[in-house]
Amino acid sequence: MESSVYCEHYQQAVELIGGRWTGVILRALLGGVHTFNALTTAIPGLSDRMLSERLRELEREGIVERRVFAEIPVRIEYHLTEKGRGLSDVVDSVISWLGKWGAEEPAPLLTEQ
Amino acid sequence: MESSVYCEHYQQAVELIGGRWTGVILRALLGGVHTFNALTTAIPGLSDRMLSERLRELEREGIVERRVFAEIPVRIEYHLTEKGRGLSDVVDSVISWLGKWGAEEPAPLLTEQ
Repeated sequence: MESSVYCEHYQQAVELIGGRWTGVILRALLGGVHTFNALTTAIPGLSDRMLSERLRELEREGIVERRVFAEIPVRIEYHLTEKGRGLSDVVDSVISWLGKWGAEEPAPLLTEQ
Repeated sequence: MESSVYCEHYQQAVELIGGRWTGVILRALLGGVHTFNALTTAIPGLSDRMLSERLRELEREGIVERRVFAEIPVRIEYHLTEKGRGLSDVVDSVISWLGKWGAEEPAPLLTEQ
């Protein structure tokens, strides 16, 4: 065995990305869904409370940034940072793997976008 | 929004791979660690019970196969199936992302291999 098989940072990263709802939220953000309501609409079963928690977690990790637009009513959007956009390869590799080994994608869902 | 931002199969896959310890076990199997004892030795903090549960889950998903060698004492090894080896791109993409955005890898740990 020459290479390391365990790395704490790898564990933290893979379990963060694969945390309940997190991988789904990342994919939606990558797909252009940026408001809280659009996210809960696009992701069936995701509660407001859980989305809030996950977005805060991703903000703490520097993966998501919250943008506040001084409009009336105030507009708030969630965007991936450059670090967050770097996760598109991870999301794509899961989708490729599914394309080869998993079930087919269901039809696109309508979103509020 | 033209492409689907939500897919149940994607959610299941990303949350399976990123489940507690699962991503770490996959990486160890990809790295050539194949016995139960070698896995618990290579992965600090992973209990026998949790490893057992995770291996069974991965077997159910067709990602891991259990090989029993009729020796005395009996030898049991866990190997990735072809479907499981297909996850190497996911593991690699997490490691690449960490290489760019995360902390450095710690020194390799000794394993029983």
